[in-house]
Amino acid sequence: MKRRGNKMSGLKFRRKHIVHTFECDVKKEMTLPALINIMVETSGLQSRHLGNTNEQMSERGLSWIIIQYDMQITQMPKSRETITIETEAISYNRFFTYRKFRAFDEADNILVEVLTTFAMMDIKTRKLTQIQEELVAPYQAEKIRTMIRAPKIQAVNLETASELPFRVRYLDIDGNNHVNNAKYFDWMINSIDLEILKNYTVGSVNIKYEKEVNFGNIINSFVSVEEVEKDKVMTVHHIENDHAIACRANITWVKRN
Amino acid sequence: MKRRGNKMSGLKFRRKHIVHTFECDVKKEMTLPALINIMVETSGLQSRHLGNTNEQMSERGLSWIIIQYDMQITQMPKSRETITIETEAISYNRFFTYRKFRAFDEADNILVEVLTTFAMMDIKTRKLTQIQEELVAPYQAEKIRTMIRAPKIQAVNLETASELPFRVRYLDIDGNNHVNNAKYFDWMINSIDLEILKNYTVGSVNIKYEKEVNFGNIINSFVSVEEVEKDKVMTVHHIENDHAIACRANITWVKRN
Repeated sequence: MKRRGNKMSGLKFRRKHIVHTFECDVKKEMTLPALINIMVETSGLQSRHLGNTNEQMSERGLSWIIIQYDMQITQMPKSRETITIETEAISYNRFFTYRKFRAFDEADNILVEVLTTFAMMDIKTRKLTQIQEELVAPYQAEKIRTMIRAPKIQAVNLETASELPFRVRYLDIDGNNHVNNAKYFDWMINSIDLEILKNYTVGSVNIKYEKEVNFGNIINSFVSVEEVEKDKVMTVHHIENDHAIACRANITWVKRN
Repeated sequence: MKRRGNKMSGLKFRRKHIVHTFECDVKKEMTLPALINIMVETSGLQSRHLGNTNEQMSERGLSWIIIQYDMQITQMPKSRETITIETEAISYNRFFTYRKFRAFDEADNILVEVLTTFAMMDIKTRKLTQIQEELVAPYQAEKIRTMIRAPKIQAVNLETASELPFRVRYLDIDGNNHVNNAKYFDWMINSIDLEILKNYTVGSVNIKYEKEVNFGNIINSFVSVEEVEKDKVMTVHHIENDHAIACRANITWVKRN
């Protein structure tokens, strides 16, 4: 079934998910790492549905890596809520593919929307390669010449920042022998002041992955806090590994009622 | 529907689960904390199915707590495998209830069997209370006068043990404002030598929870290793919090082919 025209969208794939209690925090809201995990898993299931394109990738020595998430959260899914996760390959250019994830409640209201930038990495050299078109063809996304730019990420204010070390643990490493991208959220969230975590809920996230971290590394999680407007703050993060920045992020938080 | 006779079994509840890649380790086998989480969640779903008995618990200021797991693992579930999780309330006495969890593969072969000891805790005093019979009645388990004793847990050899500190993080705390029992497995597994973790797979687990740990605590994870027989070792664990033992466990590991 060929698609026509020039619409910025590709094949969609949907699945239902009952939010597990262990995926939730003290507020009984789904945690960011749990949400990211289930979304990325859904794109993996789409790949399998379209004929195990991920296996074809590894046969060529390639792997998908995630470069950036730009997330808008209207309402975090709640414990035991049945949500629908939708994923859609949007478009791709020479070096990147763009994919949307959406989460809907049972009345089909949108809870979360995420624009994700993927790239193809050579597993041996750990370097990015050009997008191989036959590998993305099954998703029927549009080829574009431009880049989709995510909002600029504001830098940590080092004058006011706090810093917390984390050891990269065995269970942080996945079947691709690499740190699952959701783990960075553990390091960032767990560095934020408890008063913010308890009294605010996530409104948006913009995160950019710059460098891989490996088993045994001791990373440093930096965070500074900015007032955005009344009842809204932004936590500004970076993860430092061996004096290089591995990941940067801005998270906005909205005061709970 | 009343049950008769004296059979040591209660109502069963089953659900299917596709093992997510993010639930797996470098060996592409499900991790112990992921397995425990999905099993305990299944008993929560059974409770909801039987009329939200967990809500009736919290209305009375009570909460279920897990005291012990005795796990036999024939084969750890693998990434993207479809498994069936079964839970069954077996029996109860004045202070404890006993529940089995089983995981089956698609051909209905048993992969994992777990006997779990639960108790009822008063949420305010954090102390155990007697089992309130009307709260366990819906599960149709048998009342017994005896205790089901799990195998004795061997103590850590402090002469040869290694020790690693872990900070109890915000995301380690769940909607019951307490550390999810699966988190202890993170602390134990992540303390074991990488050569064992990579070259061996879990054969059995016996874990006993003694004391709660709380947000902000720095716990120490002790582990010593014993040769059991050719190609089989046992890791012996305890988690210490403020000089008291919070949790003890023995895990046997079988060499991979």
